[in-house]
Formats: sequence, C-alpha cells, structure tokens
Amino acid sequence: MTVEIICVGTEILLGNIVNTNAAYLAEKLAGIGVSCYRQIAIGDNEERLEDAIKTSLSRSDGLILCGGLGPTKDDITKEVAAKVFGEKLILNEHTKDRIRCYFLTLRGPDVTPNNWKQAMVPEHGKVIDNHNGTAPGILFEKDGKFAFLLPGPPNELKPMFERDVEPYLRSLSPEGLYSSMLKVLSVGESRAESMIEDLIAAQRNPTIAPYAKTGEVHLRVTAKAKSSEEASALMEPVLEELRARFGSNIYTEDENVTLEESIIALLKEKKMTLATAESCTGGLLSGRIINASGASDVFAEGFITYSNEAKMNTLQVRQETIEKYGAVSEETAREMAIGAANAAGTDVALSVTGIAGPNGGTEEKPVGLTYIGCCVAGTVVVKEFHFSGDRRKNRDYAVVKALTLLREEVLKESV
Amino acid sequence: MTVEIICVGTEILLGNIVNTNAAYLAEKLAGIGVSCYRQIAIGDNEERLEDAIKTSLSRSDGLILCGGLGPTKDDITKEVAAKVFGEKLILNEHTKDRIRCYFLTLRGPDVTPNNWKQAMVPEHGKVIDNHNGTAPGILFEKDGKFAFLLPGPPNELKPMFERDVEPYLRSLSPEGLYSSMLKVLSVGESRAESMIEDLIAAQRNPTIAPYAKTGEVHLRVTAKAKSSEEASALMEPVLEELRARFGSNIYTEDENVTLEESIIALLKEKKMTLATAESCTGGLLSGRIINASGASDVFAEGFITYSNEAKMNTLQVRQETIEKYGAVSEETAREMAIGAANAAGTDVALSVTGIAGPNGGTEEKPVGLTYIGCCVAGTVVVKEFHFSGDRRKNRDYAVVKALTLLREEVLKESV
Repeated sequence: MTVEIICVGTEILLGNIVNTNAAYLAEKLAGIGVSCYRQIAIGDNEERLEDAIKTSLSRSDGLILCGGLGPTKDDITKEVAAKVFGEKLILNEHTKDRIRCYFLTLRGPDVTPNNWKQAMVPEHGKVIDNHNGTAPGILFEKDGKFAFLLPGPPNELKPMFERDVEPYLRSLSPEGLYSSMLKVLSVGESRAESMIEDLIAAQRNPTIAPYAKTGEVHLRVTAKAKSSEEASALMEPVLEELRARFGSNIYTEDENVTLEESIIALLKEKKMTLATAESCTGGLLSGRIINASGASDVFAEGFITYSNEAKMNTLQVRQETIEKYGAVSEETAREMAIGAANAAGTDVALSVTGIAGPNGGTEEKPVGLTYIGCCVAGTVVVKEFHFSGDRRKNRDYAVVKALTLLREEVLKESV
Repeated sequence: MTVEIICVGTEILLGNIVNTNAAYLAEKLAGIGVSCYRQIAIGDNEERLEDAIKTSLSRSDGLILCGGLGPTKDDITKEVAAKVFGEKLILNEHTKDRIRCYFLTLRGPDVTPNNWKQAMVPEHGKVIDNHNGTAPGILFEKDGKFAFLLPGPPNELKPMFERDVEPYLRSLSPEGLYSSMLKVLSVGESRAESMIEDLIAAQRNPTIAPYAKTGEVHLRVTAKAKSSEEASALMEPVLEELRARFGSNIYTEDENVTLEESIIALLKEKKMTLATAESCTGGLLSGRIINASGASDVFAEGFITYSNEAKMNTLQVRQETIEKYGAVSEETAREMAIGAANAAGTDVALSVTGIAGPNGGTEEKPVGLTYIGCCVAGTVVVKEFHFSGDRRKNRDYAVVKALTLLREEVLKESV
C-alpha cells in the first residue's frame, strides 16, 4: 500500500515552522509497512491544493493531509478535500458540542466565533474526535481510495494518528514489513557504511539501511515476511553479524530507546546517581537527560556554571586553575566534574566546557574546542573535542559526546 | 520568480530525520521575494527523482535540491540531475584536492574511498565550494531555468546558500518584496486574528499574516514596492495600527531577534543579572537563554534542582514547604526563585516547577500543572499554568511562559 503525505500551510512554505509532522507520519507509516514515496508541502491555496490532492490520489492508495483545519479564514483543507471527494459540508452537532465543552473547560465560556467553522464536516465523511483540541479529523473514502485529514498541531495529530489512523491502515495491509534497529555510538556514517559494504552489496531480504544521526549511526534491518516469526528467522543472522562487527558500540537494539534512556537504564542498573556541570551547553545536557522517563531515579542535580564565579563558588573550581589554564581547559573540566559530584553528592558527574561559537574563539583555542569530563567514583577522565559546526550543532555534538563518554566510563567501571 | 524545493533522501521519507532544510530554504526564499509554492520530499530513487525534477522544473523558474550528494551509493541526486540537464559527470581536480585537504586537516590522512565520488561534477555545471564539508554544491543552467544542488547537512547547506545561492537569486529578481515583523507575546492565535480581522479583510498592499508560535504570535507585514522607501511608506500606517492594538505585548519588531535575545537585551539595558532554578524543564530554560548571543553578560548561573534534596540543599527551599505544599506548588516555586537569586547573587531569578507528564499527575495536581516564579530585587511573583500538551510541549510552553513572566516583571520594575 502506498500513501502520500500532504502538509498544508503557508507557514510551512514560508519557512515559519519546521515540518515535524511529515517526519512523524513518515516514521509511523514506515513502521507499519506502508510505503510513502513522496511528501508534499503546499500552501493554503485552493487551486494548487486541489491539484496536489488529485495528483497524489492518482498515484497512491491514500493520502494523509495535515494542517489547514484551524479556525481561521485561510484554513481551507477540509473545504478543498470535500470538493475533490464530491462532498458537502454540514454542521455536526456532536462536534459543535465538543468544541463548546473544550472552551468551557480550558478557556472560559466564550467560544471565539470562527471556531464554529471547525464543526462543519462532510456529509458522508467520518468524523474523528479530537481529544486535544477543537478541530476534528476527517476520513474521506471513495472508489477504493482514502484521505485522512488531521489537525496540524503535533499534540493533536499524534494521538489521533495512533488511535484512529494506524488501526485503519493496518486493517488495509495485512502483509507484513518487520524491522529491527541497532543504534551505534562512536562510529561515523562513512566508516559505518564501509564496515558493512559487503553485507549491503549482498543483501536482498532483509535489507540494512544506515542512518546518520548527530554523533550516532542507526542501522535499520527490515524484512518482508508473512509473520513476525518468519521475519525474526530472516533477520537474526544479519543482526548477529552486525553485533559482531559493532560490538559494544551498539547501545541499544530497541528502536524506541533513546541514547539518554539507555544511559539512565545503565546507571539505574549500576545503582549510580548522576550530576552535570555545564558551561557552553548551558542546560542542554541536563535537559536531554531529563527528557528520559525514569530520569528522576538517577539524575540528582545540574549546575549551569556559565560565569567563572559560578564555576568557583558552586563547583569549587580553583581560581588559579581558571587563571592558569582558562575556563575552557582540561583542568577546568576536571575540577568541574569533581565539583559537581561533590556538590550534588552523586557517584557520577559529567562536565562540559567549550567554545560553541560563533564568537569567543582564539588562535590557540578555536571555536569548537570542547572539553568533556566524566567523574566516576572519584576518578576523572577528560576528553578533548574539536567540533566544526555552528553554535547549535557544536552544542548538540557536545551533549552526545558527553553521554558517549559517560557510557564508556560507566561500562569500564563494571568490568 | 518561482522556485520549488526538492529535498532528497530516503531518511526523510522514512521519518528518520526532520526536514529542517526545507524550512530554512523556504524562509530565505520568502525573505528575498522568491515565491515557493511547493516543497517536495522524495527518496533516493532514480525514476521518481527524475520525474520530480522534470515536473517541478516545468512549473517553476528554478529548483533548489538538497541532499543526496553524500559519499554513499544511495546518494544519486547529482547523477539524476545531470541526466535531466543532459550533462556528463567528470572528475574535478580542484574539488578532489579540497576533499583531500579536508580529510587531512580534520580527520587524518586516509580519505574513505567512496568520498572521491563527491569530486565528480557536471562538465558544464558550476561547482560551488563547500567550506564546511566534502560535497560541493552544483549549479545547472539550461533554457533559462536553473537548479541548485546543495548538500544535506544544514551546517554545509546554510553557508553555501547565503554565500552563493542568495546573490544569484537576487540578481535574477530585481523587483522587490519587503517585509516587517512584529512579535507578540501573551495573545493566542485565534484572539490575535480576531483583533485584526478588519485589517486583514481590507488589506491589499501591504498584507498582514499572523503565524502561531509556541506561546507567541508573529505578525508579518509584507509590501510589494519598487524601493525600500516606497515599501516603508506603505507599511508604516499598518505597523502603527498594529502597535496601537498590541501595545507592550509586542516584544520586538526585528525579525531576527528571538524572545530570549530581546530579554537578554532588556536585562542588559536595566543592568540586571539573571539566574534560573528549574525542575520539570530540566535545563531547557537556561539552554534557551544561553542560546542568545550576549547571554554571558547577563546570565550568571542556573540550577537544575530535579530532586527535593537539590531544592533544599542548593536553593534552601525549606523541607516543611515541600512537605506541606509539595514540590509542585506556588510556595516551592517562590522559595526556588528566592534561593536561586541568593545562591547566584543576581538581581533576577526565574523558577519553574511542574508536572510535565506523562506520569506523575494526580487528581489534585494533574499533568500540565506548572508554577513559574520570578524574583526581581527580592520581590517574587508566582503564576500558575495548566498546559495541555505532551511532555515536550508542556516543557516548551513552560520555558516561553517563564520568559514572558520575566519580561512583564522587569518592565513593571522600571516604570
């Protein structure tokens, strides 16, 4: 089964928002074996939207449209889709009541009048209740093809997809696509592909696809099979070979487990607690760790010691260390890590100090220079990195490299 | 002039990466008055890519393709574009030397052999040097139409666009599109549109377009004009009217200034320093503040007091406060703010404590309940919020609402 994704919104075409919905929907579709060969972003323009819906419908089994169901005048997805499917829009009392109650509960008794537009639904289309907003989803079906219309806000779209769209799609495509994922640290994309070139050249079913992430490579192994047992039998020899080649650089084989979650789980297993001391990453490291569910069992405290005073007062970094070696130095990273472990009373502490850019670099210490320290039970290891991205990228890499170092050091500890 | 954006990569179609390049390119194109009516994402598939390039080229003046210039076998954008433009690929010694030097300088003397593929360029296409990676950009021109091929990694694509693509596009379209932006806090999307409904109904040139952001609404005013003076004359009365309607809720009129930057500037102007104390946001608030250039002049220190012990030890939140009112309470937020200001010795401190979800909610204190405190010169204001998104969204909203509260309180202070 093939589906195309059409994201509607002038704000996407003008670059005012990043189209995260397309990525979310694409990943979900891939996961259930629905092929998606095209994603299209188009504005709130009747003529072009109509053309896009017709064209996409002509070359696929169905569409997922998202966005353009809002209360404002320029939201026209429902109207245009109804036209293509030959449907009339009528007031739906059930939806009207849901909108009224949504406002009453969360925003006060006065419904902004243009919100009533969202209670207009196609005469024969199916209405999909929105449990997180006012715009209902719609399902059109005609001549063996379908189109789902979903609201644009991700916190409305995602639960609606999972509750209503996914079961519908699964019911249409009983043939199975099964996949496993190995997530690898410390190996670049080119290097990873070189390491498995022979396997990829020889592959048929299953296939291996490498994906480069910031500081990680994910290897997806996908098999076509009639059952999950058959798929497992096909995939297992390939997975074994990949495990042999990438060894302990594989941090998880669970697609849904993030790096931070795997580290939280590792620390939990070792009964270790964690603190962080950040300078250039400014809270991104702790923010990422706390993103993981279960972080509260492990993560005690984070210190964002941006100024030298904060490094000295809060982490007891010695003034002479900063004066002699500088705030961005192996020595400062070392004392920050020890200081964070002491201040928070934890077994493990990570420290990051670097020059994220675009300013602050010198010839001796250029932009991108970063020191990451990891203190485990009183012993500190500091690594030096030279990142070559922009400010954002350098900080993102520093976060991943800090988590990578933490994993390496904690694994060493337990041998 | 119309341009279509084609992002190439199976990793986009499978949802393995979010297509931030499309948003970046779209915003840049809009800013220089180039119309982009369609963004397309397509996989590394020869047939479909060829079809997409031909179709997009037939309905626009030019294309920007990004991605698929990498060293791996599945990167075929250059090969397919060369086919469409009737070009042959030949080895470019200049590019080969650049790749060799890039490896030598940043990765060691051994070039992964598949990287040499990146030195193959079209016989008549223009080569655009990549100063941040190994894949050069390419410009094809034929029959009055053009196609730029840019590398997928954003830190390579962006500088290349700004240095080489933008000047080229500007030289093609001397007619002018000029725009201004007002960024508004504390007003929802529906409400904002209601407030300017009459202006939008009556508009011709300039036009006003509202964009909803997390906790913000941006109002873009766009004029078509022969000169920037003419555009200013057209826009000024509209801007005046918007200023009258949104008043101090407008935090900036500079498109490139972010909320965090405007707040850093405000604090700098008031000669005030800032500290943060975060629980559920776990470093996202400080991370966002430190994103702003110039943050180091204002931001002293951040505390991520995730555990109750950290709140008590580091911020001197009283044990009885936590026992009586709970860690997520007005009282705890108050003491966290005071504690952060005291510990860091700053004029201003922000505190956030809440239940981001998905777990941890109770009937009395549901997921989404968040208290944000702001201490200015010893006086604390605490506000209660009920967010209705997922974990990520609730944390993002908490960050914006904290910055909003900070701005309100600091502005009050100075009256």
